[in-house]
This record gives sequence, structure tokens and C-alpha cells, in this order.
Amino acid sequence: MKIAIDAMGGDFAPLEIVKGIEQARDRYKDIAFQLYGTENKVKPLVQNWERIELIPTTEVIEMGDEPVKAMRRKKDSSMVQAAMAVKEGRADALFSAGNTGALLSSAIFLIGRIKGVDRPALASALPSFNGPHDQFVFMDLGANAENKPSHLYQYGILGSFYATHVLGIKNPRVRLLNNGAEEDKGDEVHKTAHMLMKNAPSFNFIGNIEARELLEGTADVVVADGFSGNAALKATEGTALMMLKQIKNAIMSSGIKGKIGGALLKPAFRDVQKKLDYNEAGGAVILGVKAPVVKTHGSAKANAVANTMGQIKTMIDNQLVLDIQTYITAHKEELQSGKEVLHAQLTD
Amino acid sequence: MKIAIDAMGGDFAPLEIVKGIEQARDRYKDIAFQLYGTENKVKPLVQNWERIELIPTTEVIEMGDEPVKAMRRKKDSSMVQAAMAVKEGRADALFSAGNTGALLSSAIFLIGRIKGVDRPALASALPSFNGPHDQFVFMDLGANAENKPSHLYQYGILGSFYATHVLGIKNPRVRLLNNGAEEDKGDEVHKTAHMLMKNAPSFNFIGNIEARELLEGTADVVVADGFSGNAALKATEGTALMMLKQIKNAIMSSGIKGKIGGALLKPAFRDVQKKLDYNEAGGAVILGVKAPVVKTHGSAKANAVANTMGQIKTMIDNQLVLDIQTYITAHKEELQSGKEVLHAQLTD
Repeated sequence: MKIAIDAMGGDFAPLEIVKGIEQARDRYKDIAFQLYGTENKVKPLVQNWERIELIPTTEVIEMGDEPVKAMRRKKDSSMVQAAMAVKEGRADALFSAGNTGALLSSAIFLIGRIKGVDRPALASALPSFNGPHDQFVFMDLGANAENKPSHLYQYGILGSFYATHVLGIKNPRVRLLNNGAEEDKGDEVHKTAHMLMKNAPSFNFIGNIEARELLEGTADVVVADGFSGNAALKATEGTALMMLKQIKNAIMSSGIKGKIGGALLKPAFRDVQKKLDYNEAGGAVILGVKAPVVKTHGSAKANAVANTMGQIKTMIDNQLVLDIQTYITAHKEELQSGKEVLHAQLTD
Repeated sequence: MKIAIDAMGGDFAPLEIVKGIEQARDRYKDIAFQLYGTENKVKPLVQNWERIELIPTTEVIEMGDEPVKAMRRKKDSSMVQAAMAVKEGRADALFSAGNTGALLSSAIFLIGRIKGVDRPALASALPSFNGPHDQFVFMDLGANAENKPSHLYQYGILGSFYATHVLGIKNPRVRLLNNGAEEDKGDEVHKTAHMLMKNAPSFNFIGNIEARELLEGTADVVVADGFSGNAALKATEGTALMMLKQIKNAIMSSGIKGKIGGALLKPAFRDVQKKLDYNEAGGAVILGVKAPVVKTHGSAKANAVANTMGQIKTMIDNQLVLDIQTYITAHKEELQSGKEVLHAQLTD
């Protein structure tokens, strides 16, 4: 398999990207890597060219660039060229640590949506603390600012495929992020989505979930609209970081006893931090497009990049995209009838 | 001043409510308390009747009751009777640790909205870690499942009043919870709200805020639509609780060294936990109704109840409701023109 790498995206690109790719090359013997990037910056960094190819590009999409414009105008950017390689079948998957919006645009407009998927979404595996599995799928994390109930319904399908194919969870339990557990909670979008999902033949819907329970392990797939999914994800990240910082500060300012305590607890803290640091385990996936497209955190270092290659390999090995495509094609009528149910409800 | 107390609402009612009220009575010499509750349950609990009066009621609104129905049907419930006392001027403020939805309904339908306020909202002071102040106001936390831009604009006004009158913050910095910092981020509701707020003569709007930054202290008032505000609040609470639990587990399972470390760090942990436990400092306030209405956590114990009486006293002492009312009446035109701007934009 071949993975197209945007070598210029991310806070530590191209150095950490290249280092991560070399680690991954040594780890996964069946992956060949195409590095898209500025020749004089990337070339000197590669130590061993085994299964690594450099495709020189002349432009770079910056973090602050307006996504759609950047994707349209910077045609010879590392990201757009890597996306074009996937579009034209020269590579099987796309990786970037760069501008999320531009990657979304590249995925949707260049690589293209799977036919029948209305709105691709950003999905990530987050840690699950008390449940039967270590992780759960959370989506949409912000690919869309607004969603219709039928989009949320489709996320149930896409998320379930990701949970089975990549996390290895059988018959994943799907829940809808809402402002209460009862089925009549939420605004019209969430009430209607709940109704559609409740009768879903395509996945195992077990009801609403409140954001308080997100990390509790009571769901394997949590479906959210892009706006509140984004808010819940960022609140979770922000709170976790703030708490670790507060605990460190409290330790540092609590005298010699506190410092000894802190030293003794270092391994324990490290465990917690590791479990929380889900970004180390892989990146966010754009589900619903014609190939695996994965985005790691902008601050990803080599190890996170290498781990993400493992995640992409699993997606390819287990034919995630092909299976979604086949399913959606075979169930067009179900998806269509979902929309009709919806239409009937909305026009009641 | 007189505060009407729903003595039957909450997980530990009436015992912890009564204990809390007796603490508050000893603390605040100018408050008289009216306890609304089941006579044979509440009466035996009161130790000293100084400035405490029992008004017997025969019904109780349960946590699981459907809010509007319960408010309408259980006319002799402790909550409804306490609300009626405020409506009829026999008490100055309403307190409950019971069913949030029923309290919202009682506040809005019995006590009534301030004229000119379209949608009362649930607001709470949350801890702020790195900013110039210890706390910030976060609203709407879920009184509304759906909001219009003009509601969010009004929350800027209501939240600013709360920040100045209750938290003592001068010229509070208002931000809008959105899925990105740039002003063109978000769905139509948030884009339009941003535009309205940017030109607000009534408060100091300084832009969008992402949920990751919530606890960072970069805003004194964070305005959110009720749906994503609720999601962000609950994600924050859930993550904080989960992390404390995980750290405790890690300590307990890390052998003798970890346990010694844990013991040495107890005071440091206690500090962090205390700062996070904003529920101890007071309750969530329903802003935009004609009297202070405050809801503490269902699990509130006596101390939290007593602290909440201090919060209500501050609201009454500083004439929060009166000042909001006066302002809104005097600025009807501004609020109206905000809606007109909006209407013009929406029909463009």
C-alpha cells in the first residue's frame, strides 16, 4: 500500500513528519511512502530512502490560510498534490498534520465523497474509561457547522464501520449526544435524529448520551452535530489539560512534602496522561470520502506520526472505505426512506 | 429580605436543605426563610425557628417528573408554592435543589420574564484559572434547546449584569462560544450573533471563544446557545470528575510508593478539587425573570445550600434584577434595532 504524506503541514514539519515516516517505514514493511514537500527542506532530512519517495512541491498551505481558497489556489502545495495522488489512484490514503479546514476541503472536493454520503465528518477515537473497550468513536468533531437529522443518521453508519473495522468492536453501541437522556430532549434536529436512529436497521442505537458521560464507556460510537461535537471535544481537552496543569502547580507550591509526593507519583501520573493523550494513538479521520484521510494534531511529533501510519494501515487492511461504499450503495433505499420519513415528519 | 425555599427538592432533601438554611440563618442576620415542604417531614428537622417559617405543602415535584406538566398539575407542591410566594411579593427570591426543568417553568410561567427579555437563561459562575478574576459567568447552560441570535445578544447584557453585580467584575469581557476564533466561524446563528454583539453598545464584546479555552480566564462572560453551552459544561464536569477518579485509581494501584505520594499530596489535591467544585460556591441562576431564582446541584449538601443563600443575598443587596429591568426598559430601542438589523440580514 502507498500513503501520500503532506510533509509540510504541522507545527514541527517537515522534521517530525519525516522522522515519523522513517519510524513507520521500519515498523510496517508493506507500506511505501510518498513525501510531498519542498525539496530543499525535506530531502536533507531523510536518512534512508527505502520505500520513501520524494515528490517535490513548491507551495505550502499555512495554518492561518482560508481553507477553501488555499486548496483552490495553492495547486502545487504539498497538501493538494498529496490529495491529487490519492484522487488519481497513485496513492491509497492521505495524511497531513496541517490546516484542518484545507484538508477537509481537499478530501471532499479533490478526493470526493462516497456516493450516497451527504456530509463527510471528522471522527476520532477517544479514551473510554469504564466500558468494555478502551476507546470509542466520536464524530462529527467540526467538519460541519450545521447538520441535518439525516446527516446524524449517516454518522451512525459511518461511525459503526469505523468502530468495527479499526477499533475491532463488534456490534458497536451508538448513542446521540444530546442535552438529556430522554428521547424527546433537544432541538428539532436532535429530536428528529433520535427518531430516525431509533428505528435504524443499520446500526445498534441505544439512545441519547449527555456530554458528562462521554468518557465513561457507555457508548462505542457517539454521534454529534459538528457544532456541539466540536464544543464537547474541546471542552474535554481543555479541562484535561487544565487539570494536569493545576495539579502540577499545586504540587510545586506545596513544599518539600508535596514535591516528594509528586516524585513518588510520577509513574501514576504518566499512566493517566498517556491514556488521555489519545492524539498519540492516531489522528482524526475524515469519514465518508473515497479514501482514508487522516489528520494528526498540529503539534504531533515523530512517534504520533508513526502511530498514525499504523492506524491508516488498519483502515486499508480492513477495507474500511470499500465496505462503507458497498454498504451505502446496497442500502440506498434505506437511506432514502430515512430521508422520506424525515421529510414527512418535518412537513407534518 | 425573604427567601422562599423549596425544602423538598434535591437528592438529600429535606434534611440537607433544612440544615443548610439553619447555617445560613446563623450566618446572614438580615434574611428570613420560608420553608415550603411536607409538614411532618420538615418540621421535626428544624432545631431553631428563629427567622424560619414553615409553610406546609402536600405535593412534591420529583426529579423524573415532566417539568411543565408537573408545574401545572402539582399546584400544592413545595416548588410551585414557593414560586407563588415570589410571584405575589411575599418573598424576594426562590431557591430549589430540585427538578431543573420544573424550576425553569415555575420561574418563567409563574414568576414571569422581565419585560423585553425574550428567553431567560441558566447561568453559572465557573472557575477561571489564569485570568484576572477567579470566576466567569457561563450561559445559557440549557434553559433553551434552540436560540436565535437576538437571544445570544441579550445574554451578553444579562451575563454582564451578573458579572458586575454578583462577581464584582468591572466592565466584564464578553465572548461568544463558537467553533473557531474568527468572526466568520460557526453556523448562521453564531455568525449573526457575532455580528450583533460586535456592535453592542451594552457590553464589552471581545470576540469568539473556543471551548478549549473556557477555564483559561480569557473571558468574564461566555455566551453560548443552550444546546452547546450545556454540552460544553457537562463535558467539562465529566472530564474533571473522570480525571480525579483516574488519578486516585492510579495512586491506589501503584504500590506503597504511590500511596505515600498520594498521602503527601492530599492537601494539593484538595486545593484543586475545591477550585473545581464550583457547585459549593453557589447555584445556577435563572437570569431574565422578575426575581432571583437559583438552583443548586441535586446532590447539594448543607454547606452548598448555605453558600447559595449568600449568593442570593448578594443578588438582592446589589439589586441585580431591578437594574436589569431598568436597563432593558431604557434600552428597548437598542434591543429592537438589534432585532431589525438581524431581520434585515436574514432576509437579505
